[in-house]
Amino acid sequence: MSAALIDGKAIAADLRARVGAGVGQLQAAHNLTPGLAVVLVGEDPASQVYVRNKGVATKDAGMASFEYRLDKDVSEAALLAKVTELNEDDNVHGILVQFPVPPHISQQKIIETILPSKDVDGLNPVNAGRLASGLDALTPCTPQGSVMLAKQTLGNLEGLHAVIVGRSNLVGKPAAQLLLQENCTVTLAHSRTRDLADLCKTADILVAAVGIAEMVKGDWIKPGACVIDVGINRIDAPERGEGKTRLVGDVDFQAASEIAGYITPVPGGVGPMTIACLLKNTLDAACAQAGLEKINL
Amino acid sequence: MSAALIDGKAIAADLRARVGAGVGQLQAAHNLTPGLAVVLVGEDPASQVYVRNKGVATKDAGMASFEYRLDKDVSEAALLAKVTELNEDDNVHGILVQFPVPPHISQQKIIETILPSKDVDGLNPVNAGRLASGLDALTPCTPQGSVMLAKQTLGNLEGLHAVIVGRSNLVGKPAAQLLLQENCTVTLAHSRTRDLADLCKTADILVAAVGIAEMVKGDWIKPGACVIDVGINRIDAPERGEGKTRLVGDVDFQAASEIAGYITPVPGGVGPMTIACLLKNTLDAACAQAGLEKINL
Ligand SMILES: NC(=O)c1ccc[n+]([C@@H]2O[C@H](COP(=O)([O-])OP(=O)(O)OC[C@H]3O[C@@H](n4cnc5c(N)ncnc54)[C@H](OP(=O)(O)O)[C@@H]3O)[C@@H](O)[C@H]2O)c1
Ligand SMILES: NC(=O)c1ccc[n+]([C@@H]2O[C@H](COP(=O)([O-])OP(=O)(O)OC[C@H]3O[C@@H](n4cnc5c(N)ncnc54)[C@H](OP(=O)(O)O)[C@@H]3O)[C@@H](O)[C@H]2O)c1
Repeated sequence: MSAALIDGKAIAADLRARVGAGVGQLQAAHNLTPGLAVVLVGEDPASQVYVRNKGVATKDAGMASFEYRLDKDVSEAALLAKVTELNEDDNVHGILVQFPVPPHISQQKIIETILPSKDVDGLNPVNAGRLASGLDALTPCTPQGSVMLAKQTLGNLEGLHAVIVGRSNLVGKPAAQLLLQENCTVTLAHSRTRDLADLCKTADILVAAVGIAEMVKGDWIKPGACVIDVGINRIDAPERGEGKTRLVGDVDFQAASEIAGYITPVPGGVGPMTIACLLKNTLDAACAQAGLEKINL
Repeated sequence: MSAALIDGKAIAADLRARVGAGVGQLQAAHNLTPGLAVVLVGEDPASQVYVRNKGVATKDAGMASFEYRLDKDVSEAALLAKVTELNEDDNVHGILVQFPVPPHISQQKIIETILPSKDVDGLNPVNAGRLASGLDALTPCTPQGSVMLAKQTLGNLEGLHAVIVGRSNLVGKPAAQLLLQENCTVTLAHSRTRDLADLCKTADILVAAVGIAEMVKGDWIKPGACVIDVGINRIDAPERGEGKTRLVGDVDFQAASEIAGYITPVPGGVGPMTIACLLKNTLDAACAQAGLEKINL
């Protein structure tokens, strides 16, 4: 193994500590405590873990955490009414509805109902548009964290070729906008891309956000490249015992780390950055709603 | 010369005729005449020509044309008040403020004051975000026209590599979104891009939107590629007589047309598509404001 590991856990812990300090400043100077409301519909076990972890991290950072668990059969109207209530609640600065929601509820309607100023997931088209237009915006947490890792690792990204595999609204497309703002040349690839291996091989920064376990092979990597693996895939791990599983990314980590210069592990890479950026977005949202400048972390 | 010329003038004339037919349908079925308001501040001669041409084309398509000429010293507040008045005017379905405006007026404030539903220039962040999110949106006219030319020429664009040189909110970035929707692999290049010539040479579709006369050279073009030249640059043309000028694009047309498969001329390529798409946006906006389906042209 030649690649240096990018320690997302440590970088995220540092960011969370800085957000915590920012929360302290805001409380001391303005008697204002940022609040994050998380809404969970149904009892999906993975979502329950996510929501619990978010609650813990929110309180650890000194913020107020509000949790709402709604029955899986809740009507769309009732969920939208809850969102509207949170929109109007002055103690709530950030609103996150845990996705996926049950199929009888429109995810897009929820996204468009959350006030852009409280949209800490960054999915409201107003925030997507402000990001695309180069304006201040609440930006989706996972791509924000991914680009932070690349910057922390490489410093100035100007002129580097970033290839992003995956073009979702949640990850790939906002990652492209953020890397463009860093003055990378940016290529967006997806399921219809031809010669994906050759394309990836031209990347100084390769972001994999596909959702297919270990799809990106070692010989797709340019020697020395910085590989950011966003994927989280659970696969069988019979070597750990019958019925056991483990998490892997969208990149074949073993092979890629022989060739890359820097690589994020899964778990412990991008994953921890997502919650840290959620806290940062909530702090930024609280400042903006109070008419204050962003706190420099 | 081996490249086939892409006849933007003819394709635009055809689109304008189809928009005109759509206007006729809307009048017949719903007694509704789409209206476009154009606001010009100051007396820039080029802007005056653009505004006049837009007015003529609007009336030719059977729409109502409203023109407002404001003094170059008009206050920002007065201009914003005019925009708000047009936002509230039911006879006006599209609003276009001709840019640039004088430096004492914030272009961004105008953009954000125009109602997204009447924003036929597609620059309001709500429209940029809806485009980026894959939702129905009013889309900037020049990139819309550019992608139409590529589609009309090549048919299905899926899997082709599109390289866009230039990343403005007006042209480059929306062109990237539109080509992504066509399932191209999309690369955005700009002034900080390294090895631009080599990158352009990988493009099946090359969109040049830079604003530098004839910057893209013949040997930057992949043999057979489709070249869409958005640039409009006025250069001296002493060969036409003392003090004479002529228009050229961002591509060295003579050299590129030896190598490309298809190329847009300047003038007569992308230029005419811009007004045609403006009319199309106005028709679409009128339908949406009346709660009607878009008319299939
Ligand atoms: N670390 C975190 O906190 C975090 C957060 C969110 C997501 N994730 C993980 O990141 C991954 C991506 O998430 P997402 O929400 O962006 O997924 P998504 O919405 O399913 O998007 C997947 C993207 O990958 C593309 N794709 C699918 N198959 C491909 C192939 N064979 N070759 C190239 N591209 C292909 C798809 O292309 P088309 O558009 O052409 O279909 C699509 O754009 C998942 O593993 C997810 O678990 C992690
Ligand atoms: N046909 C029409 O109706 C129509 C409509 C609009 C515009 N246009 C024409 O299209 C052209 C572009 O317009 P625009 O509004 O997009 O211009 P713009 O806002 O000035 O943007 C120019 C873009 O080109 C990039 N660029 C500048 N120098 C470069 C270089 N040496 N190498 C690579 N990229 C470079 C810039 O990069 P940075 O971001 O790094 O600075 C920027 O992204 C102009 O010629 C304009 O007249 C035509």
